[in-house]
Amino acid sequence: MPVIDLNSDVGESFGNWTMGDDAAIFESVSSANVACGFHAGDPSTIAQTCRDAVAAGVTIGAHVAYRDLAGFGRRFLDCSYTELHDDVLYQLGALQAMARAAGAEIKYVKPHGALYNTIVRHEVHASAVIDAIRAFDKDLPVLLLPGAVALDKAADAGLRGVAEAFADRNYNPDGTLVSRREPNAVLHDADQVTANMVRLATEGTITAVDGTDIRIDAASICVHGDTPGAVTMARAVRTGLENAGVTIQSFV
Amino acid sequence: MPVIDLNSDVGESFGNWTMGDDAAIFESVSSANVACGFHAGDPSTIAQTCRDAVAAGVTIGAHVAYRDLAGFGRRFLDCSYTELHDDVLYQLGALQAMARAAGAEIKYVKPHGALYNTIVRHEVHASAVIDAIRAFDKDLPVLLLPGAVALDKAADAGLRGVAEAFADRNYNPDGTLVSRREPNAVLHDADQVTANMVRLATEGTITAVDGTDIRIDAASICVHGDTPGAVTMARAVRTGLENAGVTIQSFV
Amino acid sequence: MPVIDLNSDVGESFGNWTMGDDAAIFESVSSANVACGFHAGDPSTIAQTCRDAVAAGVTIGAHVAYRDLAGFGRRFLDCSYTELHDDVLYQLGALQAMARAAGAEIKYVKPHGALYNTIVRHEVHASAVIDAIRAFDKDLPVLLLPGAVALDKAADAGLRGVAEAFADRNYNPDGTLVSRREPNAVLHDADQVTANMVRLATEGTITAVDGTDIRIDAASICVHGDTPGAVTMARAVRTGLENAGVTIQSFV
Amino acid sequence: MPVIDLNSDVGESFGNWTMGDDAAIFESVSSANVACGFHAGDPSTIAQTCRDAVAAGVTIGAHVAYRDLAGFGRRFLDCSYTELHDDVLYQLGALQAMARAAGAEIKYVKPHGALYNTIVRHEVHASAVIDAIRAFDKDLPVLLLPGAVALDKAADAGLRGVAEAFADRNYNPDGTLVSRREPNAVLHDADQVTANMVRLATEGTITAVDGTDIRIDAASICVHGDTPGAVTMARAVRTGLENAGVTIQSFV
Repeated sequence: MPVIDLNSDVGESFGNWTMGDDAAIFESVSSANVACGFHAGDPSTIAQTCRDAVAAGVTIGAHVAYRDLAGFGRRFLDCSYTELHDDVLYQLGALQAMARAAGAEIKYVKPHGALYNTIVRHEVHASAVIDAIRAFDKDLPVLLLPGAVALDKAADAGLRGVAEAFADRNYNPDGTLVSRREPNAVLHDADQVTANMVRLATEGTITAVDGTDIRIDAASICVHGDTPGAVTMARAVRTGLENAGVTIQSFV
Repeated sequence: MPVIDLNSDVGESFGNWTMGDDAAIFESVSSANVACGFHAGDPSTIAQTCRDAVAAGVTIGAHVAYRDLAGFGRRFLDCSYTELHDDVLYQLGALQAMARAAGAEIKYVKPHGALYNTIVRHEVHASAVIDAIRAFDKDLPVLLLPGAVALDKAADAGLRGVAEAFADRNYNPDGTLVSRREPNAVLHDADQVTANMVRLATEGTITAVDGTDIRIDAASICVHGDTPGAVTMARAVRTGLENAGVTIQSFV
Repeated sequence: MPVIDLNSDVGESFGNWTMGDDAAIFESVSSANVACGFHAGDPSTIAQTCRDAVAAGVTIGAHVAYRDLAGFGRRFLDCSYTELHDDVLYQLGALQAMARAAGAEIKYVKPHGALYNTIVRHEVHASAVIDAIRAFDKDLPVLLLPGAVALDKAADAGLRGVAEAFADRNYNPDGTLVSRREPNAVLHDADQVTANMVRLATEGTITAVDGTDIRIDAASICVHGDTPGAVTMARAVRTGLENAGVTIQSFV
Repeated sequence: MPVIDLNSDVGESFGNWTMGDDAAIFESVSSANVACGFHAGDPSTIAQTCRDAVAAGVTIGAHVAYRDLAGFGRRFLDCSYTELHDDVLYQLGALQAMARAAGAEIKYVKPHGALYNTIVRHEVHASAVIDAIRAFDKDLPVLLLPGAVALDKAADAGLRGVAEAFADRNYNPDGTLVSRREPNAVLHDADQVTANMVRLATEGTITAVDGTDIRIDAASICVHGDTPGAVTMARAVRTGLENAGVTIQSFV
């Protein structure tokens, strides 16, 4: 019986500014990457998001980020190992307090935005993130891009690294993502996306941009929720997976 | 055998800016009010401060504050109950992660600056602080000004409220502090301050501004460390207390 | 021929977060209160907003605020005269650079949110705002609530104070706004609001909450644009005024 | 009669945190790089710094930076051209308001920290800075490292680029700075530094790290003021230059 996790970013409102349709996303996913205040998420947004996740039966993960509200954590910041290590640890602790007040716990970590992309290759930042997670709780799995150097660091540190796939992204034949600089980087057709993800969950393969079938080893699928179209696609993916007999379930 | 706690504010550097002589203060106090990032204290400062406190055998308390780096938490901010509750909870969680990475735990909470002064009378903010502490850990004592409405809220919530005295402040005959608007609000003579605190610790009394002796019920004495003179006075108070046979020991 | 100004808040997005439908609002108003970065408005948002205002032929005003992104400037902050004076001056200069790069100039100032409400009565904050505006440009008019102590300070300082009305608010018979704590504080019926504003612009009167007609002396009307309903109402007010022969024109 | 400018960073306090001995530095330099609020400098610090610069007869320059208070502007931030352009423009306008309130004007621009170092080679960030300065005031000179790509961008844009030397840094024989990763990057001997700068000002040469004499074309010398030793060295350099008959004078 095939099983896969669906994860999405939530809790990204800040003060008077709202972001995403978290209520809709909670209906579709099994895991919620909750902002921790450094790229988004004021404490009251985080607290409410944790309560909503608990109510929806969705697993809480920590969406840790560079300290950059103005850039939404999407800009590489050349901080030191120590700064990044401590920034991540601070965010984990802050979110843990909010999760516990909601009757839950952080169950995994997913680096956000520029940090996620940077630690695909940046050894020092990868180590800082992994070491901070281990210092916080050595049993927390960490969600990363397949092939990321941070996955190696996680393995070295005795942490469980979990690779994820992206529902709406096109893949190169070598299993890497088609760059966002390419016109066909992002898939917009919900049927195509759903078919791709059903095959991923049931066979471990997807169709790459050149039409060939490739193996993708992923325990979770990332879906987006920051636009009405994204919410619709997330629902379609979930429904398609369930109709294909796939159980949607957290990887933790 | 008389016992009293000495507490002081630490961890108030931020990035490239330094504040206070924490190393000197750790030699004098038994309890350290560690900044949590909202009025001061970047994560790396907080992490290092926690390690230093552990090395010095000093108890870690959470110095929670209004969200106001530009004002160092010294300005009243008219936030809502929910905002303040969640801001305090977020700070407690963040500091807890740093304390645990240093092999310690938050052992008490002390509101900082304008928040400390506001919850002497402000019912809503007092409740927000107390409720956040209880949500985080109902066994954490909270350090407050004698007579503060927040002490009543703590009692109602089943939290242990602890009253503190200020080493370098003059007292009115009714036990309140002489306002900082008055010229003699602050005591500058280390001998006078020390004598006052020895009597407080051994007899439970101090000499008020009018020369009369008054009862002050305090389990902790706040000393400052943000100027060279303050550090010297903190040392004098500690030495004076020890010479008088008083044990300096955390109230927790 | 009756003339009145319509003003609204714009430029309140911040980084990845959007706020309001500025494009729609620019079609309806003659004056734009542009956020200056302290409650909302990152520099690129401000720059684009200034260009859009110029393209739409809308006058640019500076929407100065307390330093409080997390609270969107809606929380009283007990800063000193000097802090507030310099915070306002800093915001004016920053916006001026953006306005000039767009080929325009700041033509008036409107305090935002909690600052606007505070200086109805708070003498020190009122003086700080007025003195900062005068230090920046003594010819800049300032938009305020009728009866505000800041209007007196403006007059004392030789600045032009301009009183405004609120399209969607109910008035007490004495000309003050019905408190937002009352159920009927806000008007939701576009026809009623429009009729009220037409009478204000043509006769200088509106119908108060008790049905009596009262005189309101206002050179500008504030409309909102942060919800779809608000944008619709702004359009209705403009159309209603134009149909009644009122010219919509900046007060500067 | 040889003439040279001495510049130093000032206005880098923030709220309750102080940085540097600006009063001492104002006695030694002819040009002050005033923080603009993005890496340091709250509005009241900036305002006071501008007044102090005017009182000391020191020229005001804008020390523009990446938006990064926690990192003091010393960390590369991978922002876009538009974000950086607008961030710089915002800072220039804000400082201009403060300078004018003090009876002065911004007379030049010097990028700070990581931004200064980045635009030695980063084409996009160099263009963003230069274009923002030109949009603000095309007559403002900009102080840069000799050889910086931003000097080429300035020339292309019709701006005056001014190269500076660093008093306390060792130079390679090719005129570049010895990397801070090398043990002898920084000079600590005030006599050696002073002799070097006298030769620079009078002959246009300095002695490189290998003992050879090299030509350095610089119209300004940067001295530091953030440590007691730095202030002493700044004074020594000024006295040495004056004793050698060099006039200390702004390059503008």
